Amino acid sequence: MSSSISPLAPKSYADMPVIRGVRMATAAAGIKYKNRTDVLLMAFDKPASVAGVFTRSKCPSAPVDFCRKNLAAGVARGVVVNSGNANAFTGIKGRAATELTAKSAAAALGCDESEIFLASTGVIGEPLDATKFSGVLGQMAQDGTGDFWLEAAKAIMTTDTYPKVATHSAKIDGVTVTINGIAKGAGMIAPDMATMLSFVVTDADIAAPVLQSLLSAGVEPSFNSMTVDSDTSTSDTLMLFATGAAAEDGQRRIETADDAALSGFRDALNALLKDLAIQVARDGEGATKMLEITVTGAESDAAAKTIALSIANSPLVKTAAAGEDANWGRIVMAVGKAGEAADRDRLAIWFGDVRVAVNGERDAGYSEEAASNVMKGQDIPVRVDLGLGNGSATVWTCDLTKEYVAINGDYRS
Amino acid sequence: MSSSISPLAPKSYADMPVIRGVRMATAAAGIKYKNRTDVLLMAFDKPASVAGVFTRSKCPSAPVDFCRKNLAAGVARGVVVNSGNANAFTGIKGRAATELTAKSAAAALGCDESEIFLASTGVIGEPLDATKFSGVLGQMAQDGTGDFWLEAAKAIMTTDTYPKVATHSAKIDGVTVTINGIAKGAGMIAPDMATMLSFVVTDADIAAPVLQSLLSAGVEPSFNSMTVDSDTSTSDTLMLFATGAAAEDGQRRIETADDAALSGFRDALNALLKDLAIQVARDGEGATKMLEITVTGAESDAAAKTIALSIANSPLVKTAAAGEDANWGRIVMAVGKAGEAADRDRLAIWFGDVRVAVNGERDAGYSEEAASNVMKGQDIPVRVDLGLGNGSATVWTCDLTKEYVAINGDYRS
Repeated sequence: MSSSISPLAPKSYADMPVIRGVRMATAAAGIKYKNRTDVLLMAFDKPASVAGVFTRSKCPSAPVDFCRKNLAAGVARGVVVNSGNANAFTGIKGRAATELTAKSAAAALGCDESEIFLASTGVIGEPLDATKFSGVLGQMAQDGTGDFWLEAAKAIMTTDTYPKVATHSAKIDGVTVTINGIAKGAGMIAPDMATMLSFVVTDADIAAPVLQSLLSAGVEPSFNSMTVDSDTSTSDTLMLFATGAAAEDGQRRIETADDAALSGFRDALNALLKDLAIQVARDGEGATKMLEITVTGAESDAAAKTIALSIANSPLVKTAAAGEDANWGRIVMAVGKAGEAADRDRLAIWFGDVRVAVNGERDAGYSEEAASNVMKGQDIPVRVDLGLGNGSATVWTCDLTKEYVAINGDYRS
Repeated sequence: MSSSISPLAPKSYADMPVIRGVRMATAAAGIKYKNRTDVLLMAFDKPASVAGVFTRSKCPSAPVDFCRKNLAAGVARGVVVNSGNANAFTGIKGRAATELTAKSAAAALGCDESEIFLASTGVIGEPLDATKFSGVLGQMAQDGTGDFWLEAAKAIMTTDTYPKVATHSAKIDGVTVTINGIAKGAGMIAPDMATMLSFVVTDADIAAPVLQSLLSAGVEPSFNSMTVDSDTSTSDTLMLFATGAAAEDGQRRIETADDAALSGFRDALNALLKDLAIQVARDGEGATKMLEITVTGAESDAAAKTIALSIANSPLVKTAAAGEDANWGRIVMAVGKAGEAADRDRLAIWFGDVRVAVNGERDAGYSEEAASNVMKGQDIPVRVDLGLGNGSATVWTCDLTKEYVAINGDYRS
């Protein structure tokens, strides 16, 4: 784990309001280390609507399997999240550990095991001793408090150097609702699903299928447009819960995804997901620079995203960023290898506002000094125009530094 | 450029015999630096048969475009290779530079421009001043010598820390023929085409279409199964020339790819291509470890290769190798993200002879110490069995170290 905070960390954390209907508590269950906070319980006072998106790995963790099964009913009473052990690639023992954890949580909350959701993060392949949860979950259920978001975000950190929190509000039929979210993740981060662990809760009263529709759409331009190292975790989990407490203020329950009253909520949710995703990218292991890569003029939005991710995942682009080198030749390389349509002689490339290449060659008016100045900043906007069509996409990533190698060359020890 | 030789460099270089019908010379044309050898000329005494495979980048370099055009006729009299400038993403100027270079070379060799082949390696996006070649090619054509393979391999190095040479021989209808090859490449190396620059010459008498068939097949399990950093160059070029001089010894000219007399030659060529490809992987920028990754039990050979490359390109697998960490959880992750069929609960994983996981969980008899000992070696065999079918593939890569970041964070300066 890194000892210093990412230079890209936010200057301050959002002031997280209480969301009615959810309480949280943390404990030190001794999963991997003694006396280190390693378990988070989120408890819903009443059954909450729930939606989720998960890793598309063919080798998902046991908790991912467990959540997928329970998601069908769309009802949540509790979430147990632990760090220190991912309970992934743990075979039959892994399934047994999820069942025992759910049983303990259900007993603590007085609900059914099918209303419990689980997430684990940490080392892969080590059996998780779930008996350790049974000793702490009862007390946690009693201790839960609503004013606990920053602490909750801290509790699920692994190689993260700062906690990720975000809050947004919106109106549904004139009633104000709030959305809070937390996330963790710094390595083994790549799109192709929800990427890392993130839990979002709103007091809005929204049916589970509607939540799922909102979440599935919202994840694409946020978490699925963010990459640290192209490595997709076995455990990626993004869940959205709606406690429905805003019904007390007269909010009409939303039952269909095309309800016009959802417009503001959808925007707020999407802004929150993007906010959290970018916070994760900014805490990429060893990161010193943040790259926002926009591709325009592609044949389609999907093609633009493929090309943008090819740039974002290129070790040569990322090491150049670390070295503050305006090496646009490597951008050309990454466009070329993406496999999508590209016409070399129509390409234009910008770092910030500095156009470095146009019509397939170096921009005659290009100033190396101006481009270098962009590279010296913490936030580096890169834009590529393909000149072929109207497809566009934006993705976020961080640079690749010696510190990334150091962190990941010695993680298990 | 790195100042020290890769720890994975060969202990000695192959003793390269002369191949009748080809002569080589080098010169310092001042492409990027003064007084540094930066041009290689290969000249064929008589028209040679030629085959080539090139980068699949959508933004190929001007020399790649030029070679593809000339390859149709299948006849070569000369090859000009320069370092210092890739002549890639140089627009109309790039095409003009290839035409001027070919014109100078054709004049020096007394042949047609359509019989000239070109390759450039170095910085992308900088115009190449091809007038610099015209001053040196005439003298080079006169100076050419057959006993020059190691020098030729040295002349095309960029960030390489050692020259790559290989030689093999075979019999065609009882007549001994020789195959020599040189290669360069250390970064921006990934499969999906020929990968880097490599030139192979034989004195066998083989028609161009047959050579192309042999080369296209041979590149798959060799250069296209090797990756350093997943970044595909705009300039990758692998060419095979046959001078036909063995006809003087009575070798019957081979006109069809299914000629049974080719069997030994095909084996020798494939062995040489694999030899060169592995030499390139062993000189991966910053490499301290060589990984040979074999996937068995996949649904098909293609699926096995996709999974093997997912492992080989994973930054987390490669940093773990650098840290001598037998982190098989990251192997599971890379299998899972590859997108091919995998059943978590049938997976088995070995480092060397040490089986660390079986039936989807940690091997009960697994010794961390034994696995760690494998990781301490320079050569690390990794095997994954999927337990699904008969598909298999082997790929090669190196580890990801701080030195890779250092080399690539400051390459242009």
